[in-house]
Amino acid sequence: MLHERLISKIFLETSVLSKEDVGITVSKEEDFSEWYTQVVLKAKLADYAPVKGLIVLRPDGYSIWESLRNTFDKKFSKSGIRNGFLPVLIPESLLGKEQKHFAGFNPEVFWVTHSGENEIGDRLALRPTSETLAYTLYSKWIQSWRDLPLKINFWNTALRAEIKATKPFLRTSEFLWQEGHTVHATKEEAEEEVMKILEIYKTTVEEELAIPVVTGKKSEKEKFVGAVYTTTMESIMPDGKALQMGTSHFLGQNFSIPFEVKFADKDNIEHFAWQTSWGVSWRLIGAMIMMHGDEKGLVLPPKVAPIQIVIVPIYKSDEIRQKILQKACEIKNTLEAADLRVHIDDRIGLTPGYKFNDWELKGIPVRMEIGPKDLEKNSIVVVKRHNKEKTSMSITDVTTISQVLNNIQKEMLDKAKEQSVKSTAEVLEYSDFKARIGNGGFFKAFWCGKQECEEKVKEDTSADIRVIPFESEEDNSGRCIYCMEQSKAKPIFARGY
Amino acid sequence: MLHERLISKIFLETSVLSKEDVGITVSKEEDFSEWYTQVVLKAKLADYAPVKGLIVLRPDGYSIWESLRNTFDKKFSKSGIRNGFLPVLIPESLLGKEQKHFAGFNPEVFWVTHSGENEIGDRLALRPTSETLAYTLYSKWIQSWRDLPLKINFWNTALRAEIKATKPFLRTSEFLWQEGHTVHATKEEAEEEVMKILEIYKTTVEEELAIPVVTGKKSEKEKFVGAVYTTTMESIMPDGKALQMGTSHFLGQNFSIPFEVKFADKDNIEHFAWQTSWGVSWRLIGAMIMMHGDEKGLVLPPKVAPIQIVIVPIYKSDEIRQKILQKACEIKNTLEAADLRVHIDDRIGLTPGYKFNDWELKGIPVRMEIGPKDLEKNSIVVVKRHNKEKTSMSITDVTTISQVLNNIQKEMLDKAKEQSVKSTAEVLEYSDFKARIGNGGFFKAFWCGKQECEEKVKEDTSADIRVIPFESEEDNSGRCIYCMEQSKAKPIFARGY
Repeated sequence: MLHERLISKIFLETSVLSKEDVGITVSKEEDFSEWYTQVVLKAKLADYAPVKGLIVLRPDGYSIWESLRNTFDKKFSKSGIRNGFLPVLIPESLLGKEQKHFAGFNPEVFWVTHSGENEIGDRLALRPTSETLAYTLYSKWIQSWRDLPLKINFWNTALRAEIKATKPFLRTSEFLWQEGHTVHATKEEAEEEVMKILEIYKTTVEEELAIPVVTGKKSEKEKFVGAVYTTTMESIMPDGKALQMGTSHFLGQNFSIPFEVKFADKDNIEHFAWQTSWGVSWRLIGAMIMMHGDEKGLVLPPKVAPIQIVIVPIYKSDEIRQKILQKACEIKNTLEAADLRVHIDDRIGLTPGYKFNDWELKGIPVRMEIGPKDLEKNSIVVVKRHNKEKTSMSITDVTTISQVLNNIQKEMLDKAKEQSVKSTAEVLEYSDFKARIGNGGFFKAFWCGKQECEEKVKEDTSADIRVIPFESEEDNSGRCIYCMEQSKAKPIFARGY
Repeated sequence: MLHERLISKIFLETSVLSKEDVGITVSKEEDFSEWYTQVVLKAKLADYAPVKGLIVLRPDGYSIWESLRNTFDKKFSKSGIRNGFLPVLIPESLLGKEQKHFAGFNPEVFWVTHSGENEIGDRLALRPTSETLAYTLYSKWIQSWRDLPLKINFWNTALRAEIKATKPFLRTSEFLWQEGHTVHATKEEAEEEVMKILEIYKTTVEEELAIPVVTGKKSEKEKFVGAVYTTTMESIMPDGKALQMGTSHFLGQNFSIPFEVKFADKDNIEHFAWQTSWGVSWRLIGAMIMMHGDEKGLVLPPKVAPIQIVIVPIYKSDEIRQKILQKACEIKNTLEAADLRVHIDDRIGLTPGYKFNDWELKGIPVRMEIGPKDLEKNSIVVVKRHNKEKTSMSITDVTTISQVLNNIQKEMLDKAKEQSVKSTAEVLEYSDFKARIGNGGFFKAFWCGKQECEEKVKEDTSADIRVIPFESEEDNSGRCIYCMEQSKAKPIFARGY
């Protein structure tokens, strides 16, 4: 024991210091921003890179991204979408082709001007998004109606130099994302694709990350500048700010004309094609952290947790340790055979209490404790991370934990939905809106459709039109929150990330 | 029929032109380099990007990479390695820390000097490799023996501006790869890791891509400059040139000292850690193309083929078409239930002959033909891509195709092994060596161990020491091919890519 204590002391001194320094030291309610950063860093999801505004993903953070990627890949593949690879460098000369679209990115573009000692004639942009590059190629690849639809997705990073304050996952100068680019023979088919993708996004975010979203359209002012229209999914975070969770754009022929993406139809007449593009980024991980985390740290939805169940053996002597470890291994094997992700924490020299805190910080959905008394009773103690509920379970029934995990997933979504409903209000009077916007939340308000009113609201309140829900797209049953003219829609206003 | 002919004509005119233009127009033997490029482009694996030296992967090319990635990920994961993410930008100031290692990359580095209109003070390098960045972070993450081993792999791209002639997959200025970086408490453990990885590389390349490799060490001259030693796997291509297929480096403490990657051991004394790094790139896809392709195009090993079996229905009237398609679908469902990747080519307006050529060009391992006569006999025609063998199979036994695919995989490896043996010679006399080196191939020759002799051989013959096979590392039973002094090893010399 002396030996183990010594180790423990060394470990605490050199590696993780005292408990106060390890855990989250601010409350989510009092200092949301600091709380968020502490969770990201202390749960070891990510760390800062040496270049300001860039982050590194540690394995626990990256595995959440891998899990999302796998889910999306399965759904994309079922929908006939395949993956490809595009280089990160785009020549400046190519960017001129659709200047309107690219102008928005100009202040954020990283420029490569030299290779080795040599200056490069045509400067190279680091990809802020790949429309121009992809469509240059698509115009070569597509010749006939037989080549359509062409549906390719790219898992890569985008680079946009952030001038504002950066925040891991939410705002960084390089971020992991996927960008899908599809080409269709008809307008109808392209518009259907836009909606199919948005549906894939919505179900994945709700089912995997347990975050409810509102889907609809962006206003003209807020849409992707290259798009005919932009559909979006938005969520309201616990601090009252809205977060854009993903967008799916109908590009119409805005790119196919300048890039000459055209095809000979069955009638042998050439037509310009119809296009879509769409993307989600690791921002989704940021949303998950904000939505579910608590004063003890991260809370992971079971579906994306790298470890779903951690088993902590509890013992005081080496002899018992062997017996308990043996049983823990048996349980692990049984659970792994049921396709669950399980870890036994047998680190020596650390107290059970220390381990409990550690796994709570990391947000592992279920902890199983097994000590000598449990062994006698052929049972284990089960502690759920999301609601701290502690129960006992017979080892014989241990595979029923799989149902427990499903329930946790459901309960987390239900709770987030409740919170989202609570954070959403209808407002009819502008004075009421202005009085309440400071508390945060989604505000449903009638709007006349004029950009002028939208801009005035933004000026007064810092709130944007986040999304015009599909069902409210033509709601003319009220009067514009700003000018009191007859409404044309009922969007959701909020201050956003 | 008239209608279908018209479509066919349009398609041929607009999309793929005449048969001569579609297929490979040079022989592999006569113009290997042109043959290779044609296969890459015409089988639609990749295409050129607008920036010289960069390529784009089309879905058929990328899916081979995805297949390799999945296999490696499973093996890495079993071996306790997890994935992470590193940004592509590395500040110039950081690179100074291990100048010797970085100096080699200097002429190839792409430099970012501006973000938007603003000049960046500390220029940013696009990652040529991530040792400096990873180890800056590792030195923060590692404090105690408990944090070891730390084993992280990164799937990303590396950027090295190529001055020499570029070639898809073999030499490009940006390439997909994985880079693994591990840290260990002891030298022995780190050296074991180097060998474990090399073994994972070897078995994966042999089992998945059906390419035999020779493993061993690089000479001092050819090793990674930051390494204590470099282990490598090398293959001999059908044109007689050697290709480096992957390397696994023992870094010793060469990086841990300048980057201060150190840990407090159980004795509470600080030690510098021991490190490894290792990588394979999409060059493996290039090797696969060269090794197995033939005059008709690509030949894919079944394990990595995006489609393993293509079913071509043959019919002359619409009525029979329905019956045949129905049977084709049944077969497809049966095969997919057996986890095989199957596609039915029911493109209208294209002749079966056209389709056969198309799928042969794309290298799909097995073609199944089903026409009215086959339907009557309840059988299908099976044509194997790698040896063009044509047989008949009862539809009742169709799942036995899975064994056929296994045999194809094995036969492809056996054939490649045979070719590799034929391309390997032992030489004792320098005059003999010089006379034969022009024909290409691996040459096993004794060597005294002096860099001077290695350099003289290179000067005279353009051949390098590609690999010192592990079993020949201390072979002192002969005389140096160049200076005739007693040998210290028996490396393989060859001209390389």
